[in-house]
Amino acid sequence: MYPGSLARLIENLRKLPGVGEKTAERYAFSIAKMKEEDVVAFVNALNDVKDHLGHCKVCGNISDQEMCPLCSDLSRDHRLIFVVESPKDVIAMEKTGQFHGVYHVLNGLVSPSKGIMPEDINLDSLIDRAADVDEVILATSTTMDGETTAMYLGKVLKEKYPELPVSRIAHGLPTGGLLDYADEMTLSHALSDRRRIN
Amino acid sequence: MYPGSLARLIENLRKLPGVGEKTAERYAFSIAKMKEEDVVAFVNALNDVKDHLGHCKVCGNISDQEMCPLCSDLSRDHRLIFVVESPKDVIAMEKTGQFHGVYHVLNGLVSPSKGIMPEDINLDSLIDRAADVDEVILATSTTMDGETTAMYLGKVLKEKYPELPVSRIAHGLPTGGLLDYADEMTLSHALSDRRRIN
Repeated sequence: MYPGSLARLIENLRKLPGVGEKTAERYAFSIAKMKEEDVVAFVNALNDVKDHLGHCKVCGNISDQEMCPLCSDLSRDHRLIFVVESPKDVIAMEKTGQFHGVYHVLNGLVSPSKGIMPEDINLDSLIDRAADVDEVILATSTTMDGETTAMYLGKVLKEKYPELPVSRIAHGLPTGGLLDYADEMTLSHALSDRRRIN
Repeated sequence: MYPGSLARLIENLRKLPGVGEKTAERYAFSIAKMKEEDVVAFVNALNDVKDHLGHCKVCGNISDQEMCPLCSDLSRDHRLIFVVESPKDVIAMEKTGQFHGVYHVLNGLVSPSKGIMPEDINLDSLIDRAADVDEVILATSTTMDGETTAMYLGKVLKEKYPELPVSRIAHGLPTGGLLDYADEMTLSHALSDRRRIN
């Protein structure tokens, strides 16, 4: 029904999250109408992300550099680690302006039902980092997988470092809520109300 | 806040219709996680559309070739022209399976309030094509600009070809409705109930 080039673009746009046929068609038609320089900029941006975007060797956050700006920032408190599921959660937390420690990005959650085990996410390096800090704050979402991951991490950290304070971000988030959709006040409260795990 | 390459991708994704900051971020993160070959396919599809997608020299529909497959199809009735605003409307109509003539795509609507005049859309070549046909069906949407365009076209065609039957697609569509969002039954009825203009 569509010219081949447009059909292939629609097919690729459908790989974006939440994009169905109608939406992919609308996007493709709008791209077909774009000025050539706008499509070139789009292509360059995609290539840049593919070629240069990687993970910070310390915290696992997405980064254009070997070490991300947050981990390189000596003015931050490197003895306080805030553990999150994804890079989006780091952005959400930074927007509150309430946290001055550093992050650890798991890039996933432990989920036995989906076959995702602790060794499949960026978890081992957190155990190493935790050897020399004042506190680890577990800030995975309040979903089932988020709680499972926090419980698992709390247990492992307690076993390895019995003296280390490990806390869980407060349940200020509605149950089932995703961290990066929460507003800044909710996140701020969730940080200040964090409770120690046993 | 974001690595530069990701920020630029978000900026480009925001140019898609209806895409705000949150959605662009979600898309960008999903692209950052894609397999390299998927990003390459996406880039190739964008380049293909930029390099090969143009307009059919006869009807103005988007096409990879100089003449689109519908205009090249000799089994269709080339003496019956269905005039629409955009390529999406052609797809919507073809899905009904009820029309066997050819199309004319205006790629826009006359809209004096937006400063879009008859000479700004693909209209002149329709006047030429209409010299040798049995009927022209005006099927612009039932929006204000769609009605304005149909009225203008009806007048111009009547003046130039007083004997030519010119019809307007029936108001089976809800007023203010966009043609390419209508279901197939509504479009089929709108075709069969078309009424002659004066």
